Amino acid sequence: MDADALAARVAQLALAPAPAASDAVPVLSYFFTPKSGSKHPDNADHDLKLVVASIEQAKNLGAAKALAAAVGLKDMRAVSGADLEKLLGRTRDQASPLSLPPSLAPSTLLITSSSLSSAPALSIPSPTDASQQLVLSHADWHKAVLQLKTEGAALKEAEFLLKGVDAPKPAAQKAAGAPAPAGSSAAAKAQAELEGQAGVQLGLTVKKEQAVFGDWYQQVLIKGEMLDYYDISGCYILKPWSYGIWQEIQTWFDRHIKALGVSNAYFPMFVSQTVLEREKDHIEGFAPEVAWVTRAGKSDLDVPIAIRPTSETVMYPYYGKWIRSHRDLPLKLNQWNSVVRWEFKNPQPFLRTREFLWQEGHTAFQTKAEADEEVLQILDLYRRVYEELLAVPVIPGVKSEKEKFAGGLYTTTVEGFIPTTGRGIQGGTSHCLGQNFSKMFNITVEDPANPGGDKLHVWQNSWGLSTRSLGVMVMVHGDDKGLVLPPRVAQLQVVIVPTGITAKTSDELRAKLNDEADRIAKDLVKAGIKAKADLRDGYTPGFKYNDWELKGVPIRLELGPKDLEKQAVLSVRRDTGAKESLPLSDLGSSIPALLETIHGDMLARARAQFDSSIVTVEQWEQLVPALNGNNVVVMPWCEVEECEDKIKDRSAKESVQGAEDERAPSAGAKSLCIPHDQARFGSVEGKTCPQCGEKAKRWTLFGRSY
Amino acid sequence: MDADALAARVAQLALAPAPAASDAVPVLSYFFTPKSGSKHPDNADHDLKLVVASIEQAKNLGAAKALAAAVGLKDMRAVSGADLEKLLGRTRDQASPLSLPPSLAPSTLLITSSSLSSAPALSIPSPTDASQQLVLSHADWHKAVLQLKTEGAALKEAEFLLKGVDAPKPAAQKAAGAPAPAGSSAAAKAQAELEGQAGVQLGLTVKKEQAVFGDWYQQVLIKGEMLDYYDISGCYILKPWSYGIWQEIQTWFDRHIKALGVSNAYFPMFVSQTVLEREKDHIEGFAPEVAWVTRAGKSDLDVPIAIRPTSETVMYPYYGKWIRSHRDLPLKLNQWNSVVRWEFKNPQPFLRTREFLWQEGHTAFQTKAEADEEVLQILDLYRRVYEELLAVPVIPGVKSEKEKFAGGLYTTTVEGFIPTTGRGIQGGTSHCLGQNFSKMFNITVEDPANPGGDKLHVWQNSWGLSTRSLGVMVMVHGDDKGLVLPPRVAQLQVVIVPTGITAKTSDELRAKLNDEADRIAKDLVKAGIKAKADLRDGYTPGFKYNDWELKGVPIRLELGPKDLEKQAVLSVRRDTGAKESLPLSDLGSSIPALLETIHGDMLARARAQFDSSIVTVEQWEQLVPALNGNNVVVMPWCEVEECEDKIKDRSAKESVQGAEDERAPSAGAKSLCIPHDQARFGSVEGKTCPQCGEKAKRWTLFGRSY
Repeated sequence: MDADALAARVAQLALAPAPAASDAVPVLSYFFTPKSGSKHPDNADHDLKLVVASIEQAKNLGAAKALAAAVGLKDMRAVSGADLEKLLGRTRDQASPLSLPPSLAPSTLLITSSSLSSAPALSIPSPTDASQQLVLSHADWHKAVLQLKTEGAALKEAEFLLKGVDAPKPAAQKAAGAPAPAGSSAAAKAQAELEGQAGVQLGLTVKKEQAVFGDWYQQVLIKGEMLDYYDISGCYILKPWSYGIWQEIQTWFDRHIKALGVSNAYFPMFVSQTVLEREKDHIEGFAPEVAWVTRAGKSDLDVPIAIRPTSETVMYPYYGKWIRSHRDLPLKLNQWNSVVRWEFKNPQPFLRTREFLWQEGHTAFQTKAEADEEVLQILDLYRRVYEELLAVPVIPGVKSEKEKFAGGLYTTTVEGFIPTTGRGIQGGTSHCLGQNFSKMFNITVEDPANPGGDKLHVWQNSWGLSTRSLGVMVMVHGDDKGLVLPPRVAQLQVVIVPTGITAKTSDELRAKLNDEADRIAKDLVKAGIKAKADLRDGYTPGFKYNDWELKGVPIRLELGPKDLEKQAVLSVRRDTGAKESLPLSDLGSSIPALLETIHGDMLARARAQFDSSIVTVEQWEQLVPALNGNNVVVMPWCEVEECEDKIKDRSAKESVQGAEDERAPSAGAKSLCIPHDQARFGSVEGKTCPQCGEKAKRWTLFGRSY
Repeated sequence: MDADALAARVAQLALAPAPAASDAVPVLSYFFTPKSGSKHPDNADHDLKLVVASIEQAKNLGAAKALAAAVGLKDMRAVSGADLEKLLGRTRDQASPLSLPPSLAPSTLLITSSSLSSAPALSIPSPTDASQQLVLSHADWHKAVLQLKTEGAALKEAEFLLKGVDAPKPAAQKAAGAPAPAGSSAAAKAQAELEGQAGVQLGLTVKKEQAVFGDWYQQVLIKGEMLDYYDISGCYILKPWSYGIWQEIQTWFDRHIKALGVSNAYFPMFVSQTVLEREKDHIEGFAPEVAWVTRAGKSDLDVPIAIRPTSETVMYPYYGKWIRSHRDLPLKLNQWNSVVRWEFKNPQPFLRTREFLWQEGHTAFQTKAEADEEVLQILDLYRRVYEELLAVPVIPGVKSEKEKFAGGLYTTTVEGFIPTTGRGIQGGTSHCLGQNFSKMFNITVEDPANPGGDKLHVWQNSWGLSTRSLGVMVMVHGDDKGLVLPPRVAQLQVVIVPTGITAKTSDELRAKLNDEADRIAKDLVKAGIKAKADLRDGYTPGFKYNDWELKGVPIRLELGPKDLEKQAVLSVRRDTGAKESLPLSDLGSSIPALLETIHGDMLARARAQFDSSIVTVEQWEQLVPALNGNNVVVMPWCEVEECEDKIKDRSAKESVQGAEDERAPSAGAKSLCIPHDQARFGSVEGKTCPQCGEKAKRWTLFGRSY
């Protein structure tokens, strides 16, 4: 985009010095492409290529269709981030009508929210410095908008009173589980960020059950200080509040795999093209998302080098070299690293990110039996990470042939469930790769039972658990007040807040309350509990309560003058709000017990919710209504791959009314897993597959999923 | 390179089926560029562009000059790995005369070692499958060589009896500390790899003090199973034996920085170009080595994205956002991650690698005093990592202005010393960045002492310690038998080997020895010691001793029938070879004590060696002789930057006779640090700088360095 042209425009407008930013209404802009062949409203000679809607950020724009209805345009698509950068040279959050190049104005329709006309001042991303907000007076905003009209843009003012924050959504839409449309998500993000910038710690402005779920999720993550957005799309900053939880998972899992004889190693993040492409089936699944380094300093590399999307092909050439005899088996290596998958789909913090942290284990055995055994040992560790650390229930099982790891023999998984959207989510996978990779990479040993005979190809497994687990934890436990952290991994388990201090409180009592709060915290720390006293000056206890609730601390202890008299403290559970007075003398044992109770209750509640959201479906007609009721289903299934395709297609078509946004992931049901625990669903004997009517093999979980 | 042409050549030669690989002599090839204007020996119309020397791998080729002398050519340079890939499409280890494209033959001289003529069979990298070795009969090798002659190559046979393995080098050359020339290093590496592939665990074939140091270093790393080479130049695989040590360092350091109030976080590995280039001085130091991602899947990115070489510019825009008030200070974050610096210089495992693991801490304070204090707290932790974990002595001090971190205020460092090469090595650095970055990234708070007045720019530090520390540890402690691991970080501290078993030993006694060894190991593990019994069948005790000595295990316990009778075990120290009989009843206390003694002794020996290698220089004439004697020097220094440049230039010129290889790093002396402990060198009062004669400010360490 032409920076000079923009600078000239800004100069031409002679924009007045910015008034104080606190008065300014932050403006968000959404960019859409109209249906091809749309005409410029004022000038039929021009095609309309771009619709820009500017709206004050406190309003929730909702989906593209709703906007289209409001302004009488149909079939608009949100402009992708990549296209937007091409058009304006800006990311979505840095774009505004003012960053439109003049050349684009004649094919643009600018829709402004009528509420903006009355705002005393507006704040929008600066056209000349993308990292800054520009504050415009009422008059300058009009000047800028008219300038665009002069350059050929069509103008429209509209009343945006769309559903969103306040209007509960019908169950059908929630069931479709549409992630927030880009515009709306950006709104949540920008809003949270702006509040952050203003230095004000506000609570959530959206409710978990009532808002577009993606908005709630983004707010809870940003305001709960789990992460921050980064200036490269799809990348996020893991702040200490979330990274600390990841470290808890690392420590626990690392200890347990070491007990299984696994060692840690580190392989390079770079892979040569030849090696990456050695296993064709495998790379087919990853190729579209591989990031390529082609330049170093000012030199072009002779051969582009890939950043690992996973490390099978990075590691296995060396397994072939290191494994020379059955004495070298089993070989069990793991690494803690980051991998890159350059997704072009809508990114989602923790769930779908371009770089993410994980562990990947890669093991080799002489026999299939050993490999099979380890697959399940690891899967059970994954189950325990979810259930014993994150208080998130999961269902262990095996993936269908269609859903298994590309190039592997079979894939086991722990499947979680997000009640609010009614979607299943894959929690971690443990694959048996069989002998496919060992044949490809020639990893063989002499058969000790048959020396000099044919070489044995080793049996391999790979298994991975990523920071996605943190996203699942937030989605399952969070509520309208913010995060709810499971106690065993929370970086702060107990916060002590002095309370009941008024203007009349003596300095002496005030000091005594603070000292005592501090002493309690120190005693708890000595007892191995992560505790601290919030002694910040200038904040009310109420502010502090909200702050720590937003951040999800499991227990708050309120200590007022009366508590001090009674030598007690009032405990408040984050998960239930339940209050209980606890004697000070006994905190070293009552608090650990309460933390364990909270863990147990959180897991039990989430499990009850998961269990009650599994609908048994034996007739096809029951399937889509069950999905639309925010459930997953368990069906007696034939396990034929074509049947799985049909289940997805048919359920997607039948639930079309549930899919509000055309960019929503398919509303069709995928197989989630064939649960290992078949017994809980009763006998499958004699039952038939609801889709095809053939004999069912096993109970299988189906559902919409992430 | 034209694969068809190669395939055709192989077909044309109709090479016979490979004889058993064990008979074949592995052939290594070295590639050199002659002086420009060299003529083809057989055909004066052709320029000679390439000299290929093929030699059996058991011989050590030595430096390029020696080869040149042997064949009567001068001023040859080894072809760089990158150029070799351009010419042959092969890495150095995969290249052979057979992978020469026919088009290159007319400008090539092929020199073959005369010892090859008599070999019954040879093994060379396959011209058609780079990952395989091709085994050629005597006849086929001659056929292949003659084919190259037919295509226009000149041939020469030479007797290679070069210095290397057996011939001790003069001190002057060791002092120059020339890292192994590429050919020679490749030889060490290839040799180690070939032995590895043959499944034979051989000891070192070079001695620490007598060989080219780089050869010894590579062998000790590969055979000691610290790392393996990777098919992308400058990248290495950290095997469990080294990664485990890194994890020990992580655990220790992480605990200590958390006690200082530092939290861990994770920032993305990608940086946008704009942000990367914000701080010009800073990026100038890194720009030539930045790796750029320009493509994802099949799409070119709109804007190239850099992989972080360090994270100042990744993090600080967010520090500006997060730090809104003095209440947000201090902000102390650390991350454990990998960074990429695409070095074009000769890579060196651990010391100079394109990707490496490290921690980087980034902190912000309200006052300079707080920043200054933390710089030293961290530096002391680095000193303790070296001394208390790795048993490597270091000298803490401050860098000269010339050597400080680009964009920072001042840099403190812990400097180590490699006695064998007489070079200093930077061990870890803790920088005070001053307010330079906070001004650049606008990281300010309101001055609590002056509300409403000018904003305060925060004071920042950054500090990093990398896996380079492992390389220093290996170089300092290793010996002619292999690694010598410091006990506190060794992944195996004690190995128990049953011994004294002969053909006459009864099965019962054999079983008893094995059981007892296993029981000792288990008891030690229970006592918190990393121990195991080596009960491998089919290996002699002698083989096992060598194997664990190669891998550097601090204590070996030998258990024979007589030991068993005495209820004792013979302990053998890896560091000194000292033997002592220890009662079995007492191992739970004698072994931990012995491990601590070993640690203390290793540190004390290395410190004595470092101390005795610091020569006090007050007259210029003493400098170069001191360097050539494998020392560093301490001088009273004026601290003027131009003087430092002159010290380097003058000492480099004067030590020219010491630099055997033209690609060797400069033999000039750089300032290593100005030691914090000035007192150990006596008063500097009244002394003058040996270089310029001006008044000296402080004692300063100078030396050749890595």
